[in-house]
Amino acid sequence: MDADLHDKRNATRVAIQGERGSFSEEATMQMVPGPVEFLCCRTFDEVFLRTARGECGCCVIPIENSLAGSIHRNYDLLVRHGLRIRKEANLPVQHSLITLSGSAFEDVKTVRSHPVALDQCELFFKRHPHLVRETGYDTSGSVKEIVEEGLRDHAAIASRNAARFYGAKVLMERIEDREENFTRFFLLSSKSSVSETADKTSVVFSFKNAAGALFKCLSVFALRDIDLTKIESRPIHGRPWEYLFYLDFLGNTGEARVRNALSHLGELTEVLTVLGCYPRDATHEKKGM
Amino acid sequence: MDADLHDKRNATRVAIQGERGSFSEEATMQMVPGPVEFLCCRTFDEVFLRTARGECGCCVIPIENSLAGSIHRNYDLLVRHGLRIRKEANLPVQHSLITLSGSAFEDVKTVRSHPVALDQCELFFKRHPHLVRETGYDTSGSVKEIVEEGLRDHAAIASRNAARFYGAKVLMERIEDREENFTRFFLLSSKSSVSETADKTSVVFSFKNAAGALFKCLSVFALRDIDLTKIESRPIHGRPWEYLFYLDFLGNTGEARVRNALSHLGELTEVLTVLGCYPRDATHEKKGM
Repeated sequence: MDADLHDKRNATRVAIQGERGSFSEEATMQMVPGPVEFLCCRTFDEVFLRTARGECGCCVIPIENSLAGSIHRNYDLLVRHGLRIRKEANLPVQHSLITLSGSAFEDVKTVRSHPVALDQCELFFKRHPHLVRETGYDTSGSVKEIVEEGLRDHAAIASRNAARFYGAKVLMERIEDREENFTRFFLLSSKSSVSETADKTSVVFSFKNAAGALFKCLSVFALRDIDLTKIESRPIHGRPWEYLFYLDFLGNTGEARVRNALSHLGELTEVLTVLGCYPRDATHEKKGM
Repeated sequence: MDADLHDKRNATRVAIQGERGSFSEEATMQMVPGPVEFLCCRTFDEVFLRTARGECGCCVIPIENSLAGSIHRNYDLLVRHGLRIRKEANLPVQHSLITLSGSAFEDVKTVRSHPVALDQCELFFKRHPHLVRETGYDTSGSVKEIVEEGLRDHAAIASRNAARFYGAKVLMERIEDREENFTRFFLLSSKSSVSETADKTSVVFSFKNAAGALFKCLSVFALRDIDLTKIESRPIHGRPWEYLFYLDFLGNTGEARVRNALSHLGELTEVLTVLGCYPRDATHEKKGM
């Protein structure tokens, strides 16, 4: 079913944002079997654009973090470029303190990383108040810079994978504040395909503002005992205070009750698009709502 | 009713994020009558903290933009610091090109502003491809810098108000791409108070994940013909993939149907807090959902 995504003989070309050794790379390894050729992009806009243009078979992007919330820009880009969700993966975010292979903790004066990663290691910095925080553009990019520039008094906060990739050393593991920190990634491609094992569906819809409109839209799922797992709203440009709703629910678009629910939802909405039907990663996911 | 917010004899002390001359200042002038003394803070965290500590009577913060969406951090801070919503104001975002009073358009080579403001003037930059974009930390702060540093070949993108405040010149008005761009501001204080003219209420709640839970929560409003105007979800820290829901609806907490709806909602939720009941700014707002 995934024949269009990966080829047994050739490497699958996957666009990601940021440098090699990132969490996006880890998520890719989890979702794409076989050899992968990465297309590293500077921005998410570039990731979506190059995937939509067919420069790669698919892309892997973060969509939500269990502490920071949705990556709203990627919801907007998903609709703008008409890509489809093929797989999801919930990755635990575990931060390591990474240095040049010859450095010891006593050498480290400055710690560089993406601001979100620095924030997620607040307790670590409280325990080591002499360390200066430095803002980098990327977690794995910070490891790359420290290695390339040979900065002996610097450390980076990034994944173990980044240390391995750039030949750096993991000084400390799990320095993040909270254990319960996951990021959900999507594998996207310009083609849609539903596997038989798919048990989760994502849709986006809008409706004319009227009292009870959202309630009615949710009723099409509740009346058929279909579990929701997420709702997200985003503004509609040119129509102030009107919203696009993104909804994830448990079910396969091939099931009768899901087909009926979507047909019912179609009666209530102005725009309705199925963004994808894919196997749920239930590893770290709670029951629906 | 607003006696705790403003005093006829003394200036009301209001915390805002950023420099004087900003959109937050304009929103304050719209919501707070009489003289105002501004407490300019570097970050939103500082705004909330100083208001919660009682260093000022209230604060004014943006909560949502009709193009960019919610300012999610401010939803998180609202709950963390236990502040209450007292008023709202929807301000049209209109950008001006602002220079030193002696400069002409021909002198301008570089345009400095907050990245969001630069993005909102995309068509302006397409019409004038020779202009170099420069990222500033703030719209009105960019005007302040250009005036203080006497940069004759620079312009800033900010509100008319910023030009007036810093004695700069408005070279062009309404250079933003779209007409329909509004930002919704809240006036917050540590005390709650409901006026008789209040016709909008904001609540935040969470529930144990279970099929149909969100649908049931919305039913308490739909069954009583209460219009929703906004729903926003934010992650709950320490409980991955569970959410706090922020809901705005039309009604006063003194009305029987609203009291009943909230009591009903209390039966279905784990946590339920009324964040405020305040007069709706319907100037640029559509009918509920």
